[in-house]
Order: sequence, then C-alpha cells, then structure tokens
Amino acid sequence: MAAAVVGEGDARQLKLLGMWASPFAHRVRVALQLKGLEYEHVEEDMGNKSELLLASNPVHKKVPVLLHGDSPIPESLVILEYLDDAFPGAGRQAILPADPYRRAVARFWAAYVDGKLHGMMLNALLGATEEERAAGTADTLAALDKLEGAFAECSGGKKEFFAGDEPGYLDIVLGGFVGWLRAWDKVGGVKLLDAGRIPRLTAWAARFAELDAAKEVTPDPDRIAEYARVLLARRAAAAAASE
Amino acid sequence: MAAAVVGEGDARQLKLLGMWASPFAHRVRVALQLKGLEYEHVEEDMGNKSELLLASNPVHKKVPVLLHGDSPIPESLVILEYLDDAFPGAGRQAILPADPYRRAVARFWAAYVDGKLHGMMLNALLGATEEERAAGTADTLAALDKLEGAFAECSGGKKEFFAGDEPGYLDIVLGGFVGWLRAWDKVGGVKLLDAGRIPRLTAWAARFAELDAAKEVTPDPDRIAEYARVLLARRAAAAAASE
Repeated sequence: MAAAVVGEGDARQLKLLGMWASPFAHRVRVALQLKGLEYEHVEEDMGNKSELLLASNPVHKKVPVLLHGDSPIPESLVILEYLDDAFPGAGRQAILPADPYRRAVARFWAAYVDGKLHGMMLNALLGATEEERAAGTADTLAALDKLEGAFAECSGGKKEFFAGDEPGYLDIVLGGFVGWLRAWDKVGGVKLLDAGRIPRLTAWAARFAELDAAKEVTPDPDRIAEYARVLLARRAAAAAASE
Repeated sequence: MAAAVVGEGDARQLKLLGMWASPFAHRVRVALQLKGLEYEHVEEDMGNKSELLLASNPVHKKVPVLLHGDSPIPESLVILEYLDDAFPGAGRQAILPADPYRRAVARFWAAYVDGKLHGMMLNALLGATEEERAAGTADTLAALDKLEGAFAECSGGKKEFFAGDEPGYLDIVLGGFVGWLRAWDKVGGVKLLDAGRIPRLTAWAARFAELDAAKEVTPDPDRIAEYARVLLARRAAAAAASE
C-alpha cells in the first residue's frame, strides 16, 4: 500500500486485479458496475501471480486489489467502503445505507459472511476428512438459515434486496458468493439454495444474478464445478506431498 | 440486532456490554472516551452471560455490544464505524481519517489485526501442542514486524500515532491489544514489545497506554497474566473432558 494519494472523486485510472472464480473479486466488479465506474480488469493467474499483484498486496498476495492511480487497495470490504468514500457522487446510489444503524447492521452481516460463511464453505469443500466436510456442510446450511433471517430483518420482508428496492452493500457482499451457492449441488453434492428451506434467500439469489451489474460476472455453475475439481485435485496433491 | 433506529447524534442511553480483559471491548471504551461520549458500562461475566448480552448478540454471544437506546450493535469494528457515523460532531476528532485512501489503509490494517494477529496470539497462548504454540509465537512476532512497518507507513515515521499527532482508528484497534502485548512476557514467556526489535511499535504502545482515554481501561499486566492462567486451566479441563 504505497503512499501516493489520488484526488477525491477522480475516477480515471481504476484498475482491478481480479480472478473470475473469486467471490471477493466478483463483489468488487458488481460494485464498480453499480457505481457506474469505468475500470480496467486484469485477470490474475493465481498459480502464477503477477508482479503487480505481489507488489500491490505484499501482506496477503490475494485478489482483489483495486488500483486507483498508483494507490493499491486490497481486501474487498475495504474496497467497497473506499468506493463510497472516494466516489460519493458516482452511480445511482451509494453502496452503504445512509442511516448509521442500517450501516452497522449491514456491516455486521458482511463480517459474518466473510468471517463465518466463507470458512464454512471452504471446510465443506476442502475439509481434510469426510467428517470435517460434513460438519462444514451442516455449518453452511445453518449460516444460510441465519442469513435468511437477516434478509427478513434488513429488507423488512417486503423488499427485493437486503438494502431495499435496490441492491446495496450486503447484497453485493453476499452476492459475490451467488455463483458458488448456485453451483453447490455440482460442487458439494448439496443444494444450498433450496426454496423449501430458505425461500427468501433463494429468490434473492435469483434476482441478484439477473442484475445487469451481476449478469456478466457471475460465473456459470458448470465452470465453478470444474474449478472446484481443480481445487480438490490440488489439495489431494498437496496432502500426498506432505505425507 | 432489533430494528429500532435511534435518531442520529442522540448520545443519550449509550450502554456498553464489555469485559475488562477483552481487547475488543477495550478498544470501544477508548473510542467512547476519545469521542467524549458518556456511557454506562456493564461488565459481563463470560462464564455466565447476561440475558441482555444473549438477546443483543444472538449470533456470536460475545462482547462488546454497544446499545444505543434499544438498538444493539455488536462487533467492535462495526461499533467504531457507528460512533463516527452516528456522532459525527462528537469529541475532539473523528475516529477514522477523513481522506478516503488513508481510511482504506487504516481499515486494511485493522482487518489484519483482527483477522491475523488475534488468531496468532490465541495460537501462541492456547495452541493444543507445544509446536502449535511455538508456531503461534513466531507468527505473532512476524505480524508485529509487519505492524512496525505499517506504523512507519501510516505515520510517515515522524508522528506519535498511526493516525498522526493524535490517536485514531488504527491506534484504537491495535490499542485494545496493548494490555495483552505488555503482559506477554508473563503470559507466554516472550517479550513481544521489544524496543530492540520493533522500536516504533514499542514506543507507540507506551504512548498509547498513557493516554487519558486508555489509562483507566488498559489492564494491568499481572491481572492479564492471572487471567491467562485461568484460560489455560479451562483449556486443559476441556481437553481432559473430551478425551
């Protein structure tokens, strides 16, 4: 995170280091699109990371990184906040709600998605033993039940999105996972978006994927499933090498 | 997180559910003090959590929770953002920097403290094996090296605090850990704040602990060490019970 600070509201020279299957990169692309901000997308090969990625995010070496001029901003939640802070006038709406308490509720659930749901899904897919993977699946289903409740709480039960009539922060944060959630029957053998179990969240996911801002960047379930097989093969090879 | 939304800027009826040894509760107390906001502090017994805590934070059942009127706000980083959002005029300064890029840098390192440093310190203290604890200690020292670099980057190397001449967001976030960092030679047998190794961070920690806002709430090293022994005994009992 070099020191150069660009002028507020300067939308030139936005570059995103991303990767198509990353829920975290996905959410930033949706946010940039919703804000109406033009940017250059650079697809990273995570098996052969670019010098720019390594220099821009030396701490984590992960996507996404937004470059605003020469200033790198890693971490997707930090980027979402930055887009509202640096481009307050851009797009049809701010990403975050205006009301302080609604902002807090949205940030609470965003932290839940990244701090809990993500790790549970990783365990469900890549857990070392069958027991670990089964526990990961059970945890993921329980987390989605909680998010079903959060949807009712945030939207008042009558709106299209967490944020209301239009998608906002929490929609974008969870929306990054919609590609994986939709593909999970092919990836993990379990239907996560089950209208019988979580009707609101299932309908929300379908609505989110149909947004203009999401349509182009939400990965196809078959492509996700193929990528999951690559991850599983890599894990098996790593486990064999360490034995 | 019930739905009642209180009016912006209404500082009446702030109540904090905290616990003296929690770095996360500690940082909220410092922030409230720096903002000049009066609040009622409720000390939670984490072995016998109050009904109010369980009702206010049903997802995590953890401190801190700030209650603003009847509206509960869990999660310390969410609370810090809320204090700036709900009380923009309070105190001698905002918690977060005004510049969008400086905000992003501070949020990046705050996420690092909570997502990396905290887990490493837990491993160093409570890891199941001696190897795990040694790895936790090595990771913690490496993380503090990174934060030493972050201090130079954020403060320009010439300021008193991460935020500049006065403490701000990242000072408060890492400052919550100062009690534990100072006590670590008694807790984990290793001096973490070593002026020979991380001179800037060591001097910063001493300055932070001397702030009026921090002095009263930064726990004494001996009390932390005593509490760490309780945690270790609990872990040993839990391990024995599960065998």
